[in-house]
Amino acid sequence: MAKAAGILIIGSEVLSGKVTDQNSPYLVRELRDLGVEVQRISTIPDDVRVIAHDVREYAGQFDLLFTTGGIGPTHDDVTIEAIAAAFDRRVVRDPALEKSLRRYYGSEITPAQLKMAEIPEGGCLAGEQDLGFPVLVFRNIFIFPGIPEAVQKKFARIREQFRDRPYILRRVFLRTDEGHIAEDLHRVLARYPALQLGSYPILHNPDHNVILTLESKDASYVEQALQYLLERLPAQTVVKVG
Amino acid sequence: MAKAAGILIIGSEVLSGKVTDQNSPYLVRELRDLGVEVQRISTIPDDVRVIAHDVREYAGQFDLLFTTGGIGPTHDDVTIEAIAAAFDRRVVRDPALEKSLRRYYGSEITPAQLKMAEIPEGGCLAGEQDLGFPVLVFRNIFIFPGIPEAVQKKFARIREQFRDRPYILRRVFLRTDEGHIAEDLHRVLARYPALQLGSYPILHNPDHNVILTLESKDASYVEQALQYLLERLPAQTVVKVG
Repeated sequence: MAKAAGILIIGSEVLSGKVTDQNSPYLVRELRDLGVEVQRISTIPDDVRVIAHDVREYAGQFDLLFTTGGIGPTHDDVTIEAIAAAFDRRVVRDPALEKSLRRYYGSEITPAQLKMAEIPEGGCLAGEQDLGFPVLVFRNIFIFPGIPEAVQKKFARIREQFRDRPYILRRVFLRTDEGHIAEDLHRVLARYPALQLGSYPILHNPDHNVILTLESKDASYVEQALQYLLERLPAQTVVKVG
Repeated sequence: MAKAAGILIIGSEVLSGKVTDQNSPYLVRELRDLGVEVQRISTIPDDVRVIAHDVREYAGQFDLLFTTGGIGPTHDDVTIEAIAAAFDRRVVRDPALEKSLRRYYGSEITPAQLKMAEIPEGGCLAGEQDLGFPVLVFRNIFIFPGIPEAVQKKFARIREQFRDRPYILRRVFLRTDEGHIAEDLHRVLARYPALQLGSYPILHNPDHNVILTLESKDASYVEQALQYLLERLPAQTVVKVG
């Protein structure tokens, strides 16, 4: 079984259409590449009750939960408070983060800036070797900021700890109508029920107009399913196999 | 109160990083522009039980629910079946859709193609004036396909029915650190608690590095909050007001 992950995008700016979420596309690609199965992405507002509810639910449901957004000095940054509330913990100041912030801002540091040293009690920092980009971790929850550049730098520091057996992906490019091959796909799934089989129509492509994706963590299972499928598909519909 | 909406992106291809969701960014911008408040976007797999659970929950929680994906002829197209299951309805064939499909595919239409005429019993078509782009509607659920081009064409036909009182948005562009203005923002919210106030750090911009957004459906409320804010912000930090 692949490790299952959830992603929680915390950001009223995404829900109001001011900012397009770049973090979930990045995280799903990275996690898939690492062999982790993302089972849900939710985008929710900067609302303590909503965040706390979802964090509790998803942290229980998935092996790993990644949050982005709501980490910062202003009123709309409530992710830490919400995660603490979700698990009935206090919010405390992390000494290493505080030291790092005081070094950066100097003696004129404001209470709002010091808020960025706060973590749910019992949380810790991952990737500590470089205090510039620590990731807050509480239980199985990895807490990222909202800025895509920062998410990517931080995730890169800790990504290897998530590496799992990789997915094997094969693609079949077709010129056909999905309605003509649906029955063949059903037959493949009846024989290979654990296969992750996708069928996607492609518009405006002179070469092919359907892509099938066959995936599993078991390479020989994918190859067998692929051969079984290719024996069934009308040969003239197959443009290429990749 | 604004109408509240949820968006459900049904697509294992998004969760596995093969396709980047373009539908939720489109729908949130359109809905915001129409004065509708999107409160949640969730991306979930092509799984009948998961879809049925979320559809039931979100259709109850929000005034409007928009789904994209899972409408088509293949095994992974299970949205209609899931919505029917969520409300304990049968799946039935819509006569208008069936006629339209038979006209398009001719006498060699396959059972898989006819599957695209299926709707949850009690559902109907919106935008019927043009059968090329009908939208399936079941209760408060608007059911769209996954292909962005089709979503946009279909949504355009029915968008006016969602029009509500518009949001008024003002922006303040600043050169400062968020930690220096957090206290001012708290004061604004203490006085104007219904204001939607966002604060966003901007990287690598020589002109400004924080954008504040002030929103409400009440124009004079936004203007008063803006004036109150501008009186509090250190004048030299304000680059422009838009």
